[in-house]
Amino acid sequence: MNEDIKVVLIGAGRIATHLGKVLLGSGVKIKQVYNRSLGAAKRLGETLDCQYINQPTSIDLNADLYIVCVSDQAIESIAAQFSFLDQKDKLIVHTSGATPGKVFEGHFRRYGVFYPLQSFSTEQEVDFQAIPICIDANTQADVQLLQGLATGISPKVYAINDEDRKLLHVAAVFVNNFSNHLSALMDQWLTAEQIPFELLQPLIQMTAQKLEKQSPATAQTGPAIRGDIDTIARHLDVLAEKKPELLPLYKWMTRSINPNLLPE
Amino acid sequence: MNEDIKVVLIGAGRIATHLGKVLLGSGVKIKQVYNRSLGAAKRLGETLDCQYINQPTSIDLNADLYIVCVSDQAIESIAAQFSFLDQKDKLIVHTSGATPGKVFEGHFRRYGVFYPLQSFSTEQEVDFQAIPICIDANTQADVQLLQGLATGISPKVYAINDEDRKLLHVAAVFVNNFSNHLSALMDQWLTAEQIPFELLQPLIQMTAQKLEKQSPATAQTGPAIRGDIDTIARHLDVLAEKKPELLPLYKWMTRSINPNLLPE
Repeated sequence: MNEDIKVVLIGAGRIATHLGKVLLGSGVKIKQVYNRSLGAAKRLGETLDCQYINQPTSIDLNADLYIVCVSDQAIESIAAQFSFLDQKDKLIVHTSGATPGKVFEGHFRRYGVFYPLQSFSTEQEVDFQAIPICIDANTQADVQLLQGLATGISPKVYAINDEDRKLLHVAAVFVNNFSNHLSALMDQWLTAEQIPFELLQPLIQMTAQKLEKQSPATAQTGPAIRGDIDTIARHLDVLAEKKPELLPLYKWMTRSINPNLLPE
Repeated sequence: MNEDIKVVLIGAGRIATHLGKVLLGSGVKIKQVYNRSLGAAKRLGETLDCQYINQPTSIDLNADLYIVCVSDQAIESIAAQFSFLDQKDKLIVHTSGATPGKVFEGHFRRYGVFYPLQSFSTEQEVDFQAIPICIDANTQADVQLLQGLATGISPKVYAINDEDRKLLHVAAVFVNNFSNHLSALMDQWLTAEQIPFELLQPLIQMTAQKLEKQSPATAQTGPAIRGDIDTIARHLDVLAEKKPELLPLYKWMTRSINPNLLPE
């Protein structure tokens, strides 16, 4: 079915690159890549073996879907710039978890969201089979069109409205950005103390892997959930001596895991 | 070389079980399992095909190493109870990251630590090849004995003194317990909002996997590190409306990732 869908990519960054490749692999016809910078458009256009352009007026008017893969801040102005596509009754979507689909309202009558819930890095190859795709559109027919497209690249397709996606994006920040930052804080600290951070590597992997089979609540271990106040007291001493700026975080987390501990 | 080492396990819980199995597999002779409860001693004794006892006086006096695998709170009283082994000049170690080796001082002349840096669950099989073993002892000869034992079960053996291990244990709490708790908080919230938590699964796995190849500092993504104040403002609105108790954590983390953001 994806063979019938003609797509134009607006943007040529990480998401456009990963998404373009996997869509192409699923049989979608990528008609063009647009990017303000012709160099970036060319790079991705050559990768995907399609036209590349840097003038909005050169855009192909015969695609079925225009996928906006730009930073959150730029989506609205792109919507305005390409609003002439609405005269051709075209469907436009963006790939952002943080921006509502309604950003297109006023510029487009047919709009939606095609949000792969993952953190993309340039270097790493992406296995879309494992990535949930959250789709939304303002008509049921377009939800179905996006559903078809998404199903071609991942078995995990979810219809998620603006309200729920907003919440999901906050949650992604907690489990991805904040969790990674915990590791960054420990890396900084251990390295300064000349203890190899690699010692924590297997534990970090195991922490994530456990959640493939258990809920986080049942996977919880450690002094806080055990109510082990002696160990916690020792930890507070270490932090007070060596890393006092982390005391508020340690206390907040400990109380959140076990509200009976550390009364204020 | 491990074929020559005779071990008695004191304790029959999760760590004793996992460690007993892998030591046995590496050729170590497990002489006995001691546990206060005979039932638990029997269960592990039968698994390891060795004697099981619940009386300290029945302990085998001819082992080379006595490994105390009990909760942190119980280590000191175990040390006192078995201090008669010191008359035979025996080496005793515990498996705890949180308790200093010095806990044995006053009861034993030869003591140390054999700490597998991992979070063990009963259900899950453990691949010791991936687990760092932190060893320490109060004589160089015993450091070498423990090194030999550890090398038989894992390629990742580190000599870590009490001071550094204390710090490492705090760090393990951050990257394991606190990171898991971030997932638990999100699971609670999403489930209450009838959004499937499984949507975040692949992101959680990817977050950990990235650290196999990159440092956490270079792996950091998200609105805070980008300085994307519009997205952060939207997140703060969502939290203020739906989950105000998480606002302090969100703000702390955001400021910690990017000190230029959210001035107090």
